[in-house]
Amino acid sequence: MDIISENRAFGGRHIRYSHASKVTNCTMTFAVFLPPFASKDNPVPVLYWLSGLTCTDENFMQKAGAMKLAAQLGMAIVAPDTSPRGDDVADAPDGAYDLGLGAGFYVDATQAPYAKHYQMYSYITQELPELIESNLPVTRERAISGHSMGGHGAIMIGLRNPRRYTSVSAFSPVSNPTDCPWGHKAFGAYLGEDKSTWQTYDSAELLRSEKHEVPLLVEQGNDDQFLQEQLKPEALVNAAQQSDSQLTLNMHDGYDHSYFFIASFIDEHLEFHASHLGLI
Amino acid sequence: MDIISENRAFGGRHIRYSHASKVTNCTMTFAVFLPPFASKDNPVPVLYWLSGLTCTDENFMQKAGAMKLAAQLGMAIVAPDTSPRGDDVADAPDGAYDLGLGAGFYVDATQAPYAKHYQMYSYITQELPELIESNLPVTRERAISGHSMGGHGAIMIGLRNPRRYTSVSAFSPVSNPTDCPWGHKAFGAYLGEDKSTWQTYDSAELLRSEKHEVPLLVEQGNDDQFLQEQLKPEALVNAAQQSDSQLTLNMHDGYDHSYFFIASFIDEHLEFHASHLGLI
Repeated sequence: MDIISENRAFGGRHIRYSHASKVTNCTMTFAVFLPPFASKDNPVPVLYWLSGLTCTDENFMQKAGAMKLAAQLGMAIVAPDTSPRGDDVADAPDGAYDLGLGAGFYVDATQAPYAKHYQMYSYITQELPELIESNLPVTRERAISGHSMGGHGAIMIGLRNPRRYTSVSAFSPVSNPTDCPWGHKAFGAYLGEDKSTWQTYDSAELLRSEKHEVPLLVEQGNDDQFLQEQLKPEALVNAAQQSDSQLTLNMHDGYDHSYFFIASFIDEHLEFHASHLGLI
Repeated sequence: MDIISENRAFGGRHIRYSHASKVTNCTMTFAVFLPPFASKDNPVPVLYWLSGLTCTDENFMQKAGAMKLAAQLGMAIVAPDTSPRGDDVADAPDGAYDLGLGAGFYVDATQAPYAKHYQMYSYITQELPELIESNLPVTRERAISGHSMGGHGAIMIGLRNPRRYTSVSAFSPVSNPTDCPWGHKAFGAYLGEDKSTWQTYDSAELLRSEKHEVPLLVEQGNDDQFLQEQLKPEALVNAAQQSDSQLTLNMHDGYDHSYFFIASFIDEHLEFHASHLGLI
């Protein structure tokens, strides 16, 4: 891992790293916040944050306002990039914001030209935590959260790997990607037209399929411009009811899809994860 | 005032406005955070935040993490732009980051080609507060703070207008612009070669010239890459000692010039201003 930059923040450290990824076949970038006193002798649990379309490792760290409470709680935060990057990494043919670079959708692509690099599911669930747990002062206790495309990623990954993540949360997630334009476009390009392969990456379908015990918290603004067409949190509610799974969905009047919404409620999510990680 | 965008945040509102400025002869942009319950019947005091080189009205609102406590304290925040803008506004001849657009240095320029638009001192001290106090649910109680070039602006403006600002603070200010490269370049271009005109815009010179009573708080990182050449907080310390003025300067090991530093200590500055504004 090579350090791109390091800043002291809230008594801890914000560090951006790059590293060669075997899974995505390119150089990947991620950011980590290490709280004060994190050390080999005092390793801390990790909240993974998966960002939304167009984001990099930087948006959450700069805009969410999460570090102050994370420092107090003794929780590390890892913010990966949202796709593979590089000159030889295929982008959307038209450079669209919702496919290709910045839009990996946290799946393992099977289709050309994406399959060579777009292996974000394996990267997030396997390679990245192994790298972090081998090199940084953290435990193997993990929680996962994210926003929009990353909210989809967090719920989907958390439901598929209940023993790997203590708790799962999301802001404004793409709840049912097999039934919205963003999901159709991305899953079609990455996974192909056989929609049976899409189900394993769909949060609502996973939640519907069996009773899940992992604590699941979702925040959603009522004035979110993507609510009706892309996000569809009602699909999660229906799925949780059908499978008798636990889900807390908080709707908020007047809030939109922006980081102002995330910042307004991120502390509640940190406390939710901290309680399940045994920090409070 | 025209609304550019509005977001709910922390129970309050973040609003970006544009307006025609008579002082700068162009369309100006600013952002405001209004805390919950601010209304004509419950007007709130205002903290003005002056940003640094290359910034706009957006950086502080997105990166400082100030809204949560401001919402709790019942304090509005106004973040102006850092210069006039527009196709007919003169920029630095070479497009440099430290002169012209994004680099108004909060002075009233007297020199061509800048004098026509670069009247930031009058804009910040007169036109903008009059506009805000006529149109938004705020009182005439004001505090002022800023970062780097904006830290210079905040201290300089606060010292020159002690009855207009209850309290003054700064992060990493350009403390003595008449004695550093940024200041030499900007003051030379905006004010001309007669350095007697520079003194009235120099925080350290103003602080040295007479005993000042306004509460003054300065935060500075020891690992700031601009500390030795551009910022020179020791000039403020020496000036305060000579004039027997009050100054609190907090030095912080390991912190740099970034927003991670500002975010780490912004709450202490909000509480400082809130105490002098009578909010706590």
